[in-house]
Amino acid sequence: MVEAQREPTPPLERMMFFSDAVFAIAITLLVIEIEVPQLPHGASNSEHLAALANLTPHFIGYVISFAVIGVFWTGHHRAFSLALHFAPGLYLPNLALLGAIAFMPFSTAYLSENYSERVPHIVYNGMLLLTALLNVRVVRKVTGRPYVDENASAKSVAVVRAWSWGLAGGAVLAFAVSFIAPQWSHAALIMVPMCMVLAIGWAKRRVAVA
Amino acid sequence: MVEAQREPTPPLERMMFFSDAVFAIAITLLVIEIEVPQLPHGASNSEHLAALANLTPHFIGYVISFAVIGVFWTGHHRAFSLALHFAPGLYLPNLALLGAIAFMPFSTAYLSENYSERVPHIVYNGMLLLTALLNVRVVRKVTGRPYVDENASAKSVAVVRAWSWGLAGGAVLAFAVSFIAPQWSHAALIMVPMCMVLAIGWAKRRVAVA
Amino acid sequence: MVEAQREPTPPLERMMFFSDAVFAIAITLLVIEIEVPQLPHGASNSEHLAALANLTPHFIGYVISFAVIGVFWTGHHRAFSLALHFAPGLYLPNLALLGAIAFMPFSTAYLSENYSERVPHIVYNGMLLLTALLNVRVVRKVTGRPYVDENASAKSVAVVRAWSWGLAGGAVLAFAVSFIAPQWSHAALIMVPMCMVLAIGWAKRRVAVA
Amino acid sequence: MVEAQREPTPPLERMMFFSDAVFAIAITLLVIEIEVPQLPHGASNSEHLAALANLTPHFIGYVISFAVIGVFWTGHHRAFSLALHFAPGLYLPNLALLGAIAFMPFSTAYLSENYSERVPHIVYNGMLLLTALLNVRVVRKVTGRPYVDENASAKSVAVVRAWSWGLAGGAVLAFAVSFIAPQWSHAALIMVPMCMVLAIGWAKRRVAVA
Repeated sequence: MVEAQREPTPPLERMMFFSDAVFAIAITLLVIEIEVPQLPHGASNSEHLAALANLTPHFIGYVISFAVIGVFWTGHHRAFSLALHFAPGLYLPNLALLGAIAFMPFSTAYLSENYSERVPHIVYNGMLLLTALLNVRVVRKVTGRPYVDENASAKSVAVVRAWSWGLAGGAVLAFAVSFIAPQWSHAALIMVPMCMVLAIGWAKRRVAVA
Repeated sequence: MVEAQREPTPPLERMMFFSDAVFAIAITLLVIEIEVPQLPHGASNSEHLAALANLTPHFIGYVISFAVIGVFWTGHHRAFSLALHFAPGLYLPNLALLGAIAFMPFSTAYLSENYSERVPHIVYNGMLLLTALLNVRVVRKVTGRPYVDENASAKSVAVVRAWSWGLAGGAVLAFAVSFIAPQWSHAALIMVPMCMVLAIGWAKRRVAVA
Repeated sequence: MVEAQREPTPPLERMMFFSDAVFAIAITLLVIEIEVPQLPHGASNSEHLAALANLTPHFIGYVISFAVIGVFWTGHHRAFSLALHFAPGLYLPNLALLGAIAFMPFSTAYLSENYSERVPHIVYNGMLLLTALLNVRVVRKVTGRPYVDENASAKSVAVVRAWSWGLAGGAVLAFAVSFIAPQWSHAALIMVPMCMVLAIGWAKRRVAVA
Repeated sequence: MVEAQREPTPPLERMMFFSDAVFAIAITLLVIEIEVPQLPHGASNSEHLAALANLTPHFIGYVISFAVIGVFWTGHHRAFSLALHFAPGLYLPNLALLGAIAFMPFSTAYLSENYSERVPHIVYNGMLLLTALLNVRVVRKVTGRPYVDENASAKSVAVVRAWSWGLAGGAVLAFAVSFIAPQWSHAALIMVPMCMVLAIGWAKRRVAVA
C-alpha cells in the first residue's frame, strides 16, 4: 500500500515542514515538564526507586501524550500526502490546529501534577476534544478542492476523513468520562483508537458499496 | 487561487526551512513560560478553577502571541513563495527578523506576569513594532530583484507588500495605545488585521487601475 | 563511497524530516537541563572554577548523550538513505523510537544529578537498551520491503543492519555493567562503538563470501 | 550573485536540514535562559524599568549569541550550498560542530549571570574558539572532494574557507582578550567580523592573481 508519489507544490511542502516542526517540538517538550529527582548524596536504591515511583503519573502522561500527538501527526501526514496544491485558505485552520497541539505540554503537565483531581482530567480531555475538532476541519479541507491530488482515490480520502472523525468521536467519549468518573478518564482514551478503527471500517465498506 | 509551482533554488529553500524552524520553536516555546499549577493533594474543584482563572492573562497571552507569530509566519510564507533565487544579501535581514521573533516568548511572558502595568505593554507592543519593521524589510527584499520569481504577478507582489505595511501600521497604533491606555493595548491589536485588510484592499485597487 | 541519489517519495521524506526535528530537539534540549551557576557578585576565579568543576558530571553527561543521540541519528540517516517508499506500517515503530529518543534529556539529567548512585545508571542504560531495540526494528523494517530502494546493494543493507545490532549488543553489555559496577557504567559505553565495528566487520565478510 | 542551482543528493540534504534544526533550536533557546521579571502587583513604572535594566547583560548576551550562531549558520549554509554529494566521513565533524553550537545557550547564560567576572568570559570565548575550529574542519571538508559540486568556482570555495579562517582568527583574539581584560572581551568580538572581512579580501585577491 505505497502512497502517492507526486511532488506537492513548494508552498504546500513548506506548510507541511512548518507543521512537522511544531508537532516535533510539542512532542519533545513533553519530557521537559517532568521534574528530575535530585536526591541527597548517598541516597539508597530504595529511595531512588521511591522517587521514580512518585513520578509514575508523569511517565504515564508522557507516554499517553506522546501517543496522542503521534496520532495527530500521523493523521496530518496521511491527509497531506493526498494533497498537492496550496491556497491561502489553509493558513488559519492549520495554525489553529497547531496552536492546540502546542498547548499539550501544558495540559499534560497540569494533569500529571494533579492526577487525582477532576478538573485536570476535564481540562486535558477537553483540550483533546478541541484539538480533534480542529483536526477534522484541517483534514476535511486538505482532502478537498483545491488542495487534493486529483488522482487520489475516493477510498483513501474516505479513510483519512473517517480516521479524523473516529478520533473526534473517541475524544467526545473520553471527555464525557472525565466528568463522570475522572479516575477512568485516562483509561477511556482507549476508546479513541477503537472509534478510529470502527470509523475506518465503516468508511471502507461504504466506498466498496458505492 | 493556487500559488506558484516552480521550485526555489536549494539555498533559498534551506533558508526557508531554517526560518520555519525558528518560527516553529518560538511559537511552541510560548507554552513553556506558563507555570503549571500544582495544588496540594485533595484540593477542591473550585480551588482548581481558581488556579486556572489566575492564569487567564497567560492563556490570553498564549493565544495572542500564537496568532501574532502565526501572522508573521504567514507573511514570510507568502513572500517567499514568490521568490525563486538566493543571494547573500538576504542573510542579515532575515536573521534580524528571526531574532525579533525568537524574543517573543520573553516579551509575552513578561506581559502575562505583569498584566496590569504600563511598562510590559509598552515593551510587548514595542517589540511587535520592531518585528513588523524588520518584516517589512525582508518582504520588500525577497519580492524584489534578484530574489523574486520573474513570473510573479505584480498584483501578488503588491498584496504581499501591502500586508507587511498594514501589519506595521497596526503595530504603530497598538504601540501608541500602550502608552496612552495600557489596559486597552491588547484590544488595540485588533487594529493589526484591520490595517492589513485596508492595506491589501488599497493595493489591489491600485494594481487594478495601473 | 557516495550514497544513493534517487529521491524518496514525499511521504517518506516528510517522515524523515519529522524524525530529524525530534532528534534535533532532543539533542539540543540536553543543555537546558544543566543548571547555570549564578555566583554572588565579586566571587573569585577559584570559586567560579569550583562551581564549574561541580558540574563535571553534567558536562560528561552532555557529551555522552549528545554522542548517543548522534549515533542513533546517524543510523536513522543511513538506513533511510537506502529507502525510497513509504507505507503506513512505518508510523508506529518510528514513533516508538522517537519517543525513546525524546526521553533521553530526562534520563541524562537524572543520571548527572545523581551520578554516584546505582539506580540512575540502570535507568540510563536501560533506556539506552530499549532505544537500541526499537532502533533495530526500525532499521530492519526500512531496509526491507516495501520501503527499500530496489537498487540498494545487499552489502549496504547488511552493514546498516549490523550497525543497529552492534549498537544493541553494546547496550546490553553496558546495561549489565550498570547493575554489577555502576561506577564503570559510563566507561562501559565504549563497548557500543566496539560492538558496532565488530558487527559491521562481520557483516562485510559475510556479504563478501556470499 | 545568484548561487548554485543543482540539487544536493537526498542524504546531504537531510544532513543540512538536521543541522538547520539544531542551529534553529540553539538560537531560539537563548531567550529561555533570560528569567522573566515578576514584580509585585502595583509596582511602579520606574521599578519595572529598573528590573529591565538589571537584565541588560542578558539582553546584550542574547543579541551577541544570536549574531554568533547566525554567523555560524550563515557559514554552514554557504559552505553546503557548494556541495552536492554525501559520504559518511561528514557525520562526525558535523555532529561535533552541532554539539558545540547546542552548548551556546549554556555559555551565554553563564556569562550573562556573572558578567563582571573573568572565568565566564574565558569560558564563553573559549567555547566560541572551539566552535570556530570545528567549523573550519566542516567547511574545509564539505568544500573538498568527494562532497563539493564539481562546478563550484575556485573563488567561491576560497571565499567560504577564508570566512571560516577569519572567524577562527577573530575568536583567537577575543579569547586572548578575555584573559587579559575580561571587561573588553565582548567588545573584542567586533574583531570576528573584521578578521572575516580581511580574510575574504585576501582570499579574493589570491584567486584573482592565480
